[in-house]
Amino acid sequence: MKTDPHPWAQKLDELRDEVWLRLKRGVLDRRAPARNVTLATVDRHNRPQVRTAVLRSADKETSVLDIHTDLYSSKVQELRQNPFAALHVWDSSAHLQVRLDGRVAVLTGSDVADIWARVPQTSRHSYGSTPAPGQPIAEGLGYTKIPDPASFAVLRITVSSIDALHLGPKHRRAQFTAQDGWQGQWLAP
Amino acid sequence: MKTDPHPWAQKLDELRDEVWLRLKRGVLDRRAPARNVTLATVDRHNRPQVRTAVLRSADKETSVLDIHTDLYSSKVQELRQNPFAALHVWDSSAHLQVRLDGRVAVLTGSDVADIWARVPQTSRHSYGSTPAPGQPIAEGLGYTKIPDPASFAVLRITVSSIDALHLGPKHRRAQFTAQDGWQGQWLAP
Repeated sequence: MKTDPHPWAQKLDELRDEVWLRLKRGVLDRRAPARNVTLATVDRHNRPQVRTAVLRSADKETSVLDIHTDLYSSKVQELRQNPFAALHVWDSSAHLQVRLDGRVAVLTGSDVADIWARVPQTSRHSYGSTPAPGQPIAEGLGYTKIPDPASFAVLRITVSSIDALHLGPKHRRAQFTAQDGWQGQWLAP
Repeated sequence: MKTDPHPWAQKLDELRDEVWLRLKRGVLDRRAPARNVTLATVDRHNRPQVRTAVLRSADKETSVLDIHTDLYSSKVQELRQNPFAALHVWDSSAHLQVRLDGRVAVLTGSDVADIWARVPQTSRHSYGSTPAPGQPIAEGLGYTKIPDPASFAVLRITVSSIDALHLGPKHRRAQFTAQDGWQGQWLAP
């Protein structure tokens, strides 16, 4: 009988640890699958919106994730109106889909000055766009990006639930919620 | 000066054609980046939900995409209450993020009998779960999957807008909408 290459998928606590390990790896390693997460929000017409974002911080103890964004992007407007977000990671090497739900605080200005100070010079041009991201322009390159700390925002996501689906020899799926102390519950996949 | 490896990103009509080409490639080639899309919906609490789905059909002429699902999965419940979906593809080989918005019809029974007839035998166990997907179970493998055409549903997505972001030497972003006849509009990225 073939040995399961991912024995951590068989126990709730180990599965939960593996999720956070892989999120953390995404923060630390730009080639890790969890580096780029897909962030879903709900817009003012109650329609879903979804885009790639870079995972900048993941802390298991507090269940908090950070994403950096241009303050004038549409996702910030959406989150100010509806603060709930869903994040998705497909980790192909682990055959693991991670879905996270959480509530998002938009942090700006002096609250994020120390984080801005650590953003590499080469990355700062992502924050400060004329016109703002998503605005119509006459030509494909009809915009400028000049680093501007006043355009820098941190989306701080307090995770309330995690859904982990492992596609192994047999599929396993579990849900973990803050409300039940993260102990976990198996679900039919 | 370096030649842009993706000259199609410089013209609206070519960019739109490339998006559909890559969606079609996802349908035909299980290793293509657009094989797995991320599907976002809105649940009954007006919170976003997001998961991987397999792209089964993509037709540029009608702007219609198909996804297959278990009829008793939560995404079907969500779409029956709020029929709007967003899809996301990150095509790393093209440095292209594609976001699509659309309205979803849930097709079942005799409407999808001919599609069910073409689902390979080995894939049919994805449709027919006891208990239903997402229901709590006592153990990780405490479920059965038995192919059941009555559990098979097709999510037929009529795309209303496409947002394409190309991360080239210079980033370019465009929006295409059914309403403006898909002619396209450059946006600040």
